[in-house]
Amino acid sequence: MSSKLRVTLCQMAVGKEKSANIAKAVSMLTEAAKRGSEFAVLPECFNCPYGTKYFDEYSEPLAAGNPTFDAISNCAKETKFGLSPVAFRKKKNGKLYNSSMIFAPDGTLKGVHRKVHLFRLNTEAVKFDEGEVLTAGDTADAITLSDDVKFGVAICFDIRYPFLAAHYQQQGTSFLVYPGAFNMVTGPIHWKLSAQARAVDNQQYVFLCSPARDTSAEYVAYGHSLIADPLGNVIAEADEKEGFVDCDVDFALNATTRERIPILKGVRHDLYDLSWKKK
Amino acid sequence: MSSKLRVTLCQMAVGKEKSANIAKAVSMLTEAAKRGSEFAVLPECFNCPYGTKYFDEYSEPLAAGNPTFDAISNCAKETKFGLSPVAFRKKKNGKLYNSSMIFAPDGTLKGVHRKVHLFRLNTEAVKFDEGEVLTAGDTADAITLSDDVKFGVAICFDIRYPFLAAHYQQQGTSFLVYPGAFNMVTGPIHWKLSAQARAVDNQQYVFLCSPARDTSAEYVAYGHSLIADPLGNVIAEADEKEGFVDCDVDFALNATTRERIPILKGVRHDLYDLSWKKK
Repeated sequence: MSSKLRVTLCQMAVGKEKSANIAKAVSMLTEAAKRGSEFAVLPECFNCPYGTKYFDEYSEPLAAGNPTFDAISNCAKETKFGLSPVAFRKKKNGKLYNSSMIFAPDGTLKGVHRKVHLFRLNTEAVKFDEGEVLTAGDTADAITLSDDVKFGVAICFDIRYPFLAAHYQQQGTSFLVYPGAFNMVTGPIHWKLSAQARAVDNQQYVFLCSPARDTSAEYVAYGHSLIADPLGNVIAEADEKEGFVDCDVDFALNATTRERIPILKGVRHDLYDLSWKKK
Repeated sequence: MSSKLRVTLCQMAVGKEKSANIAKAVSMLTEAAKRGSEFAVLPECFNCPYGTKYFDEYSEPLAAGNPTFDAISNCAKETKFGLSPVAFRKKKNGKLYNSSMIFAPDGTLKGVHRKVHLFRLNTEAVKFDEGEVLTAGDTADAITLSDDVKFGVAICFDIRYPFLAAHYQQQGTSFLVYPGAFNMVTGPIHWKLSAQARAVDNQQYVFLCSPARDTSAEYVAYGHSLIADPLGNVIAEADEKEGFVDCDVDFALNATTRERIPILKGVRHDLYDLSWKKK
């Protein structure tokens, strides 16, 4: 495989009707394929309004026979590219996770990331606590895209944590994908900065995919889906409206950057270690 | 002690004459004290041109009876505030470190940070490898400023490493000080971003103090000494010329920020750990 990848971030407008959200996701992924994309990303919670009171009702098991899984799995088969959509998982024990499914081009589920760091915010403008209804995930396993390329998926507030990104980097990832939904408080100050920080820390591409901004929603997403290169440059960025971010990335730039500014080579493995516990 | 602190970053022009550099440092620290500062910072290598061929000649033991130590120790006594100057240490075994001395207001040496991550850069415009002549330090111990306030000192390339900053944060620091000398390649893209990233990751103030830019020097420093608040806002910044950055910081903002955006509370200590080895 070439070191290049055409990526499309689908910054979709998420509404209150689940079936319409799923249909919109399929239509945007199909359009992304028509545009020549090889890797498409949907936002966090693309099938559900972002709000703790909705999560239970909109959730479903991440398995065949359920509407979100079936629609995206079929779409993956038809479009023939890898997808990183997001949905909720309802396990038998009733626990809900904020999850991201990663499908292979044959429609099989290649991986799932369950949000490790649940989102909380206590400001006058926005108060939110995912922990009221969601359970946090305990794993962060890199996914293999090709012989040469692995990537890590994490969700929104997960980007706040350099240890999680470093855990992926230590598994040899070439890029990090964060479906996310920052808001109008933290979006303007931290959305782009967080992407740039994780890109520079780990000397790899970072993709952020947000829902479009809906100022009539209870939780107003910031939008601005973007791609940062391993130098931290934002090389493609949406505004706040529904639409696509298309970008050609070249993982050769990871290697060049690591050679020119040897940050990763300088990590003091002799002095400190990040240990990730198996739970 | 109040939660407030008046800080001055002394962005001094460093030249080739060591005694003139020391005199300039003393004069800038004295001026900072006159301006009402309670905490002053000098740049990395304030007594030495930044270049591997100079480090051995300009270095000295960090102990009384040596010109840099004596001048800064006396100045600390006279100005009555804590200082974070930088010098080189030459140990008996001949090893050189890139070190930062922290003096107490009584002129005693309160702490030393030896740069943990030596700087390397392999670009067309700038090639540098501190490892040719310097040895890396192995510790990062927070320093107590008052009953309520601790801080961490690290040097320049150390800011690239989130693990080091997190190690300080886990020791309960309220701010991080990085004397540094980024260059014209990495300065424009990463100097401010790195400060903001470490500030937001660790929800505390970050001070960066650079030498002034000297375009006739072999290594051209970027300048732009700055202070980022715990939200990542740059609240004070120099241009490239010699001068002072004065800033009143209020550590109460650390607590407010941590309450409003509970990043630190959300660290998954149950899932991952940073272990710092004793060497």
